[in-house]
Amino acid sequence: MKVVFQIEGASPVQVECNAGDNLLELARRANVAIDAPCSGNGSCGKCRVKLMEGQVESYPSRHITDEEYEAGWRLSCSCKVVTDCTVFVPDIASAYQSRMKTADLSSPEEVAIFEKAQNDLKESGIVFDNDFMALELRMDAPSADDTMPDNERLTWAIQAQLGDVAVEIPYIVMAKLASTLRQYDFHVVVKGEFLGDRFACMEICDPADTAVVGCAIDIGTTTVSMVLTDLKTGKILAKGSSGNGQIRYGADVINRIIEQSKPGGKKKLQDAIVKETLTPILGNLCKTANISARSILRLSVGSNTTMNHLLIGVDADPVRMDPYIPSFFGWDGLKAGDLKLPANPLAQVVIAPNIGSYVGGDITAGTLAAGLWDKDEMSLFIDLGTNGELVFGNRDFLMSCACSAGPAFEGGDISCGMRATDGAVEACTIDKDTMEPSLTVIGDPGQRVVGICGSGIIDIISELYRCGIINARGLFAREGARVRRDQHGMGRYVIADAEESETGREVSINEVDIDNFIRAKAAIFSAIDTLLRSVDMTVDMIDHVYVAGGIGSGINMKNAVNIGMLPDVEPEKFSYIGNSSLAGAYAMVVSNQATEKCAEVASNMTYLELSTYPGYMDSFVAACFIPHTDRNLFPNSIQEC
Amino acid sequence: MKVVFQIEGASPVQVECNAGDNLLELARRANVAIDAPCSGNGSCGKCRVKLMEGQVESYPSRHITDEEYEAGWRLSCSCKVVTDCTVFVPDIASAYQSRMKTADLSSPEEVAIFEKAQNDLKESGIVFDNDFMALELRMDAPSADDTMPDNERLTWAIQAQLGDVAVEIPYIVMAKLASTLRQYDFHVVVKGEFLGDRFACMEICDPADTAVVGCAIDIGTTTVSMVLTDLKTGKILAKGSSGNGQIRYGADVINRIIEQSKPGGKKKLQDAIVKETLTPILGNLCKTANISARSILRLSVGSNTTMNHLLIGVDADPVRMDPYIPSFFGWDGLKAGDLKLPANPLAQVVIAPNIGSYVGGDITAGTLAAGLWDKDEMSLFIDLGTNGELVFGNRDFLMSCACSAGPAFEGGDISCGMRATDGAVEACTIDKDTMEPSLTVIGDPGQRVVGICGSGIIDIISELYRCGIINARGLFAREGARVRRDQHGMGRYVIADAEESETGREVSINEVDIDNFIRAKAAIFSAIDTLLRSVDMTVDMIDHVYVAGGIGSGINMKNAVNIGMLPDVEPEKFSYIGNSSLAGAYAMVVSNQATEKCAEVASNMTYLELSTYPGYMDSFVAACFIPHTDRNLFPNSIQEC
Repeated sequence: MKVVFQIEGASPVQVECNAGDNLLELARRANVAIDAPCSGNGSCGKCRVKLMEGQVESYPSRHITDEEYEAGWRLSCSCKVVTDCTVFVPDIASAYQSRMKTADLSSPEEVAIFEKAQNDLKESGIVFDNDFMALELRMDAPSADDTMPDNERLTWAIQAQLGDVAVEIPYIVMAKLASTLRQYDFHVVVKGEFLGDRFACMEICDPADTAVVGCAIDIGTTTVSMVLTDLKTGKILAKGSSGNGQIRYGADVINRIIEQSKPGGKKKLQDAIVKETLTPILGNLCKTANISARSILRLSVGSNTTMNHLLIGVDADPVRMDPYIPSFFGWDGLKAGDLKLPANPLAQVVIAPNIGSYVGGDITAGTLAAGLWDKDEMSLFIDLGTNGELVFGNRDFLMSCACSAGPAFEGGDISCGMRATDGAVEACTIDKDTMEPSLTVIGDPGQRVVGICGSGIIDIISELYRCGIINARGLFAREGARVRRDQHGMGRYVIADAEESETGREVSINEVDIDNFIRAKAAIFSAIDTLLRSVDMTVDMIDHVYVAGGIGSGINMKNAVNIGMLPDVEPEKFSYIGNSSLAGAYAMVVSNQATEKCAEVASNMTYLELSTYPGYMDSFVAACFIPHTDRNLFPNSIQEC
Repeated sequence: MKVVFQIEGASPVQVECNAGDNLLELARRANVAIDAPCSGNGSCGKCRVKLMEGQVESYPSRHITDEEYEAGWRLSCSCKVVTDCTVFVPDIASAYQSRMKTADLSSPEEVAIFEKAQNDLKESGIVFDNDFMALELRMDAPSADDTMPDNERLTWAIQAQLGDVAVEIPYIVMAKLASTLRQYDFHVVVKGEFLGDRFACMEICDPADTAVVGCAIDIGTTTVSMVLTDLKTGKILAKGSSGNGQIRYGADVINRIIEQSKPGGKKKLQDAIVKETLTPILGNLCKTANISARSILRLSVGSNTTMNHLLIGVDADPVRMDPYIPSFFGWDGLKAGDLKLPANPLAQVVIAPNIGSYVGGDITAGTLAAGLWDKDEMSLFIDLGTNGELVFGNRDFLMSCACSAGPAFEGGDISCGMRATDGAVEACTIDKDTMEPSLTVIGDPGQRVVGICGSGIIDIISELYRCGIINARGLFAREGARVRRDQHGMGRYVIADAEESETGREVSINEVDIDNFIRAKAAIFSAIDTLLRSVDMTVDMIDHVYVAGGIGSGINMKNAVNIGMLPDVEPEKFSYIGNSSLAGAYAMVVSNQATEKCAEVASNMTYLELSTYPGYMDSFVAACFIPHTDRNLFPNSIQEC
């Protein structure tokens, strides 16, 4: 059988298959990106494709209306191929890449936040320095009177500059030593690391090429961001981001761990991040910065525990299996060459250490960047990524925990939810009288609505509640033109009618969506509550709240307090600190001391396992209201009308 | 155009080409082994193929008779393809592999010589020990009360056995750590090197696999030999050898250096030795020894300077270009993974150091094994490989030099010369009265004569001289049934008539051959003479002569003295020490002290450049007689009749 995938904005892909093959699996085998946050179990409804020719066998889904079914729309995870066919695949992959809100330093605000983090670290006494260098060497050519072979000649020339140190010449330098010396008439640049008593050569090249470059990488479950930096000046040379290529194996870490445990799975997941994601970005960054990949002498990675296990290709099953102990916390043995990354193969890939299965290197790097470890005041650090992770404490102690907020913040589990790409409603106000919404939509002016992303959902629910349209349980309490009900009586608020939307489908938020979202925000708040209780503290003792992560960027903090997601502290106590994982990774790649400090922060951090902590479930249940069962916890939030 | 190579004893190979393509080049591109010692310049006459169908454009060669030309024989280096054609290729490659005399420990005599060398080293105080080990570890699985991650667990288990040492876990171990620990219920073997204050892990595996293996490699220009050894007991686990796959790029080092300097040449020559030669042997040895390649934790290489440059892929041009300084003497940065050898990728490949362009690691390793460095007596070490290298001295000094004896000892430059494979005359006596020869031919009983190898040529020339058939200048002085002359009056001695030989071609030795051979032996003897003079010594002060190398094995030492090739010392002073490069490499892989000693021997060895040494040319000219112009140098040799 033959299946042709007509991919929006890309060349069609044709694959051979057998009758009965699952269409989503087939797309994955053919490297066709289809969004499947639930990894193909039929629950998320995101893996839509449109049948153009031929037949598939499919079972009905609540995510496809009768009209849509008539028009050919199917969930690819629920389709078996029965004839040759052609299916249309909406271009979600390139939408990610083009306009995903990845906190990748693409706006001046983000750059300012990033630079503030680095300056704060410097003020905390972290020296931004490392031992990498480019040495310009001028040697004589061998002659009858000067019979030293090339490697000894190089060693002497280095010692002439650095003193009596051991010089390590690895294979990649030795193999091209003779030809490079002669190509440049024994006037070359050697790059490497000066480790006190020894100089480890890493590259020999053109005397004009003195670039000594580091690369900081944030690997999120959903998106990946990178910066290239000059290791001597700290200057950012290039930056870039894209979706995490593993997305087709599931939106969340659990589904990916399950995928990697299948035969060949570790290689597949590793290739998806290394070959398909990091390698092309890195290639582009080198081009932008006009440097050779061999000039990248150190890399650093801020990533959650699952992501760094999948990066290395180490079995990630222990992460999700009782007793939830990952295969490593800290490990400093990785080289770029091990992953075949386009960088100097000897470059160390510094991985920010994990402290548990669900509090990983993105959080330790983020905590480093947020500076909690250097403050007297009590700070709460919240990273709202695909999962929610929290750190609370100061220079004396640090407590951390993770909560499974679910994919709601990224648009999962929400009928019209989507990630923060073009067409997503990212902010909203509602007129209390007319109940008409005012929307902020991601994209060029005139962009029509496609769906709602996390920050938009927070705003809409907060506004619906403020306007009395929904009650504390998230049920519709007012009627009006935009409030509609289906045949079962389930209410929904229509953001955009079918004819107003980009897709021709109504964009709305219904009671099930709101319930899902309330559970997600309750997970966050009850985690905060439990973390505070674990150290016998209360909300009013929080001096500062740092909100990090891509989702955080667009959040209206006040609305997030209003719905009972974030603690009710004075607005001036909130700081949005952007992609703190990337900021921490950057500090680590440039600064040896920052790397040491991150290890120290990690080793001093205590991990609280919420699921077994007494009272957590009660706290969660109590938080499943807007804003909370205990109104005293939210004295300043809006009142239900 | 299409060319089909019908290879004797193998499947035919068909290649596409353009009109005008050179047939030898085409064969090389198609990996068809055609012997071409002169690398295709038309001088050696060895690259014969037989045209079966189609046409080629070729120029005449003195190496092809008219009858042979009629029958279709051509020199492939001198043919251009003009039509589709089919050519027959005699199977020289597999003849090498099957019966080449490689001194590869295949006979009890060789094993005895090899073992004696190791015992002598031990008696000289070299401890045969290293720091590699296999640790059996039993750990508890992680639990809620024992939450250490895998890498820390492994570290603790190692420290429980070795004390408080740093434990290095590299990528290849980390990547499979989680799955291996769980596969074997946390009961595993870890292999690595214990370096005093740290243990460098190299492999984690099945608790039943405790193999800790080394591999010693002798890379000769013509042949390659290897042994696998247990690194703890020193026991030999497997041994093997084959021709050096680079042979198709030229028989001698100069032609190969020229080949590697062409675009893509370094990779081509490196692939020929690594992928085509070492990798298959190593695979076989692992199979024979029933060990995993990952168990090979150290390798060592004895090889001449050009061979180790080509192995690493470093430009070898400096070796042959004025001022003849190679790119390195000693270098310890090579890992098996750099070459993608089937061994533990972290295994160091210890290279015996070179001391000059033409005295390489095979000689320093051989000198280590011969034990010159530990003796009071004056010893002369001669390695008769593709080149001739000499070392003279004792514990106080070591002088070395190389002479370009040319390919005569390996059958090159001799009309019926061949390497020591099936059908080669390897020994000969001649009846003084009847002038009839008695031959020893390599191969199964009844093997007919194909040609003459180096040791056979020494015997024949010595016997021809002893019988008065040739004079001191190598010209024929007697007439008889086996002495024939061509139309120009050039004499030859017929070993086998056309109908007696394997090939249907007469096997004989003519005056040009003898002249070529006399130049080769003169190169050796004048090198000895010059080396002695350089330290103000004479032949009678030599206490011992060690003859090493594959060619040495079959040499009749007395005949070699008779023709003035080896110095005229008492027969009991000669020792054949076999493949001393392999013996030295073996000592180095097993013993850290042997590796250090080899480096010390190399650094103490003085290199004498013969070509510029005063009096060398005179000495050479004087040696161009049988046995020598100065008969006093050979008082005990036979007299010309």
